[in-house]
Amino acid sequence: MLLTALEFLGLVAFAASGALAAVRARLDVFGVVVVGLTTALGGGVMRDVMLGIHPPTSLRNWPYLATCAVTALTVFVFHPQVARLRRGMLLADALGLGVFATAGTTTALNYGAPVYAACLIGMTSGIGGGAVRDLLLREIPLVLRREIYAVAALAGATLVGVGYVLRLPSAATTVVAAAVVVALRVLALWRRWNAPVAKDAS
Amino acid sequence: MLLTALEFLGLVAFAASGALAAVRARLDVFGVVVVGLTTALGGGVMRDVMLGIHPPTSLRNWPYLATCAVTALTVFVFHPQVARLRRGMLLADALGLGVFATAGTTTALNYGAPVYAACLIGMTSGIGGGAVRDLLLREIPLVLRREIYAVAALAGATLVGVGYVLRLPSAATTVVAAAVVVALRVLALWRRWNAPVAKDAS
Amino acid sequence: MLLTALEFLGLVAFAASGALAAVRARLDVFGVVVVGLTTALGGGVMRDVMLGIHPPTSLRNWPYLATCAVTALTVFVFHPQVARLRRGMLLADALGLGVFATAGTTTALNYGAPVYAACLIGMTSGIGGGAVRDLLLREIPLVLRREIYAVAALAGATLVGVGYVLRLPSAATTVVAAAVVVALRVLALWRRWNAPVAKDAS
Repeated sequence: MLLTALEFLGLVAFAASGALAAVRARLDVFGVVVVGLTTALGGGVMRDVMLGIHPPTSLRNWPYLATCAVTALTVFVFHPQVARLRRGMLLADALGLGVFATAGTTTALNYGAPVYAACLIGMTSGIGGGAVRDLLLREIPLVLRREIYAVAALAGATLVGVGYVLRLPSAATTVVAAAVVVALRVLALWRRWNAPVAKDAS
Repeated sequence: MLLTALEFLGLVAFAASGALAAVRARLDVFGVVVVGLTTALGGGVMRDVMLGIHPPTSLRNWPYLATCAVTALTVFVFHPQVARLRRGMLLADALGLGVFATAGTTTALNYGAPVYAACLIGMTSGIGGGAVRDLLLREIPLVLRREIYAVAALAGATLVGVGYVLRLPSAATTVVAAAVVVALRVLALWRRWNAPVAKDAS
Repeated sequence: MLLTALEFLGLVAFAASGALAAVRARLDVFGVVVVGLTTALGGGVMRDVMLGIHPPTSLRNWPYLATCAVTALTVFVFHPQVARLRRGMLLADALGLGVFATAGTTTALNYGAPVYAACLIGMTSGIGGGAVRDLLLREIPLVLRREIYAVAALAGATLVGVGYVLRLPSAATTVVAAAVVVALRVLALWRRWNAPVAKDAS
């Protein structure tokens, strides 16, 4: 229940981030909706394709689809206002990252993936949609460049994996792990944490 | 039978469009063939991966592969002539889009996907190959920018979905829906229809 | 046994090539590891997704994952030295290409794919990781531009396919075919073979 609510919030945040990026790339209204949907659903589709869940869950759930489409359209119309909510967007994006990375890991474990595979698949669930958004709009994926992004997703996924090995209750560890992801992202943004870059890269 | 003929025409059109774009990006002859094949088969492979059809149908059908490879080689040799057939290429591309979007939806329905998932998977079948072509050649996918492209595919897919819900005969609705896609694309190109872009996008 | 050793060498070479490219694109240490892993495992994941092997084999095998991560970290720290080993890297990359293209074809045949589908899936195994690396770093994939690259992979895959049709022993043909790929790549680099580009491409 709580998880479903969080998942919706994550979908909305990801759909909005995709739509906003598409508005900035001057795509038309349909392009904005397609990029919004792809950003929101991309990570889940990758997860389901790797786990053999056919057709992908996120495509089987019409409230998900409707939510994403409405969010993208709203951003298309009100993009100046949405762009001004910068902090709120970043927080929502962190929530989405946390929820998708940890819920993705749980799903992979439920489908019998070994723990480390489940963690990688969970991380992919979290960062996949954003990576596709940036590829479609011809950017080097932000998820590879931004402060502590992929690694926050991996940390959350790993916590879920550890909880699974220790047989802790799955819903509780998922919520705690998602909170850790959000905390890591918020701290990274607030303190401007950045991982080191190689010296003298030519 | 008619559908198979149309599907071949669609494959040829997509393979030619991929090969032509690759010639323009100055790829060598093998790059041209690889991009031609990827453009023609990409949408179908995505569809099959999402539906759990292993290995993907289009890779199991050697006449498809041979047709695409021969088309790409022909474009490599005769690209100035092919480039001059601009109208014919656009029409063939519209045909391909219509056939793949609607046949993809029908396939997804036959594999038990819910109606709205089937429509999305059908749309992906139609536009997927072109999106991969543009990604490989480092463009923002034309399918997201061009006049009424993704939405024409979605309209055709939705018609097939509606026909399925109303239990209309599947072959007939597929042909009609494909014709609607072609008509939408031709009208969009002829009247220069474009979907609106957000105002003041920064 | 020999094949496993070669496969490890191929993984290391691919992980190093991905990490080196990411260092040059000035990604941070986590980005370097993610791109290294993606380059090394990408082709195998594509193969498994197309064959319906869930979850993908390369994600189920922790020594693979650890090897790739350690390689990427090593490149991050010692990248000037690694970059200087240019010939060694090219040779290792050729080995990886040969091993993945031929082993991928064998895997596809074992999973019941028809011969020509198996060859295409094998070629994708070989070149997929490098293509994703270049997409993530916003380049037109080198595999489409470099001297005789995709076609060397396809030649190796085809040899495995021919061996399968003639019922030759699978391990032996795989090793021979991988050697042919390496030889083709080394010759292409040494003699600067390049496939022809279309004339007057506008």
